[in-house]
Amino acid sequence: MFFPIDPGANATIGGMTATRASGTTTVRYGTMRENVLAVKAVVADGSLVNAGRAVRKSASGYDLSHLFVGSEGTLGIVTEISLRIFPAPETILAGHCHFPDVESACNAAISALQLGIPLARVELLDERQIVSSNRYSKLSLPEAPHLFIELHGSAASVEEQREQFESVASETGGQDFSWASRTEQRNALWKARHDVYFANTAYRPGARAITTDLCVPISKVSAIVRRSRERIVEAGLVAMIVGHVGDGNVHVQFLVDFANADERERAFDVISAMTHDALNVGGTCTGEHGIGQGKTKYMLAEHGTAAVALMCSLKLALDPQRIFNPGKIFPAAIS
Amino acid sequence: MFFPIDPGANATIGGMTATRASGTTTVRYGTMRENVLAVKAVVADGSLVNAGRAVRKSASGYDLSHLFVGSEGTLGIVTEISLRIFPAPETILAGHCHFPDVESACNAAISALQLGIPLARVELLDERQIVSSNRYSKLSLPEAPHLFIELHGSAASVEEQREQFESVASETGGQDFSWASRTEQRNALWKARHDVYFANTAYRPGARAITTDLCVPISKVSAIVRRSRERIVEAGLVAMIVGHVGDGNVHVQFLVDFANADERERAFDVISAMTHDALNVGGTCTGEHGIGQGKTKYMLAEHGTAAVALMCSLKLALDPQRIFNPGKIFPAAIS
Repeated sequence: MFFPIDPGANATIGGMTATRASGTTTVRYGTMRENVLAVKAVVADGSLVNAGRAVRKSASGYDLSHLFVGSEGTLGIVTEISLRIFPAPETILAGHCHFPDVESACNAAISALQLGIPLARVELLDERQIVSSNRYSKLSLPEAPHLFIELHGSAASVEEQREQFESVASETGGQDFSWASRTEQRNALWKARHDVYFANTAYRPGARAITTDLCVPISKVSAIVRRSRERIVEAGLVAMIVGHVGDGNVHVQFLVDFANADERERAFDVISAMTHDALNVGGTCTGEHGIGQGKTKYMLAEHGTAAVALMCSLKLALDPQRIFNPGKIFPAAIS
Repeated sequence: MFFPIDPGANATIGGMTATRASGTTTVRYGTMRENVLAVKAVVADGSLVNAGRAVRKSASGYDLSHLFVGSEGTLGIVTEISLRIFPAPETILAGHCHFPDVESACNAAISALQLGIPLARVELLDERQIVSSNRYSKLSLPEAPHLFIELHGSAASVEEQREQFESVASETGGQDFSWASRTEQRNALWKARHDVYFANTAYRPGARAITTDLCVPISKVSAIVRRSRERIVEAGLVAMIVGHVGDGNVHVQFLVDFANADERERAFDVISAMTHDALNVGGTCTGEHGIGQGKTKYMLAEHGTAAVALMCSLKLALDPQRIFNPGKIFPAAIS
């Protein structure tokens, strides 16, 4: 068996539960939301709450475990977490291919999912990210948008998935399909994907990386990526784009010279504009990183006054003295 | 595309959302919990709350949509529901086989899931249920515990799943594998499964059917079913057992002569004892039907005082005047 959630960083189970984390395997296995069965938490009056039971499903009372998952430590201290695990796949095949543009890559992913190909991972890296990753991870990929994918199943099923994926991806312009079944080859591929942060900070020495975490309906991903790239170019900024494209989750990584006040301001302006682009098409300001302090300013625009007021009343009902992780999630005015 | 949740009754989307419903396909596709992306709800102060957005994932603020899913109308009036849908499978194959005893049938299901066979349905019918269904649905199945299963995928994948399932089920004593790929044959099989309520009420005319809805960790299912059958026999009652065995969800359907006060009392005593059997092994008193009024008496035993107190404070925070569906979910003393 294995626990599938792969945020691609040194995340702890507690931290992943607090932020409702996910990562590259969500497209097949879900997020912490789907894979935390139950939690225990100490709440403000000192009592230990059993939130949920470790069964596959329950219709018994309010869904307390989901209230704690993603609450960022603001409702209590989680002390125990029961997780769902999955059978380790018999065969794993990883691969990549490139496309003439981001839209073609997104359409390939959409087609594959609509056909029911059970992709375990499907990651978009735009051409700027490929340039950066080639340099840092010593790859020699063509400088074009890529999909990195992974297939899980029996040997025969994985082979069939591979054929089906190549077929649909070819239709939207995918080419140079390259596959790795050996563990070392696969690990090298995913290490390059997980190392994009280091690749990008090495790409522009001295710059600081700021990463966005937009998530939109999958049909909107390519438009969001295109508009984001336009905004980046217009503002004269350096940024790479990667995405958990099967989930609609796009990370734009800006490399900003913080000593340059004007550049810093332009970067934050673009990030704000991109976030509102995502909210305007029904998306969320954070797919997996959480609100923390940095995204509190988007809470009202994303959820509306009534929903934020409801969240406030939940917070005050559970933590009337606001002792748990103050200043997080809620806009400062009501925090 | 299709919406997979199959409660097997004339359920509405609103009702299914309110009770966190599921059914025969949970083993592969999840419950309403996993498949409701967002809801809109009118809350006690008359405002319209947007709870969640229709994206695959989000880490933005508290998980309000999951607070409404399963709240049985006690927190507000849900007015809009966004659902996740899935690609319709290219090939569907349904089948059944029988086992020397319930434990062998449960072990076959467990082995199949541990091997990663992506069963779309795996339903247990005990020998008493088969007798009843044979009579009502004009089947001629051997009077032994059966698994009814369904496989979804490409033609080649379904054929491989069938071979794998026969192999693991044979190892635990499964025999007489029978498969139906034609729509009419498949529908006949699932109609028989969905008609168990009617089969059982016809089996004992004049009796009223009372159905339990226990859910336990899958490793505990066979022990729970065996102990339940012992309790039924000891109390001299008539009952059939079916289960969504892949999820650990067991329905015992009692056929009770309500005119007979002694029999009625014995039935309710056995139901109570069985429920505590399930709670004692980490289970829940309701996998998919909800608490309503009938199961409020199990809330404290299942969740503990601290969790029920927390649910109460959520209820009062959202509905201080208790105008929404009073008397449901909470034990009378605190309702």
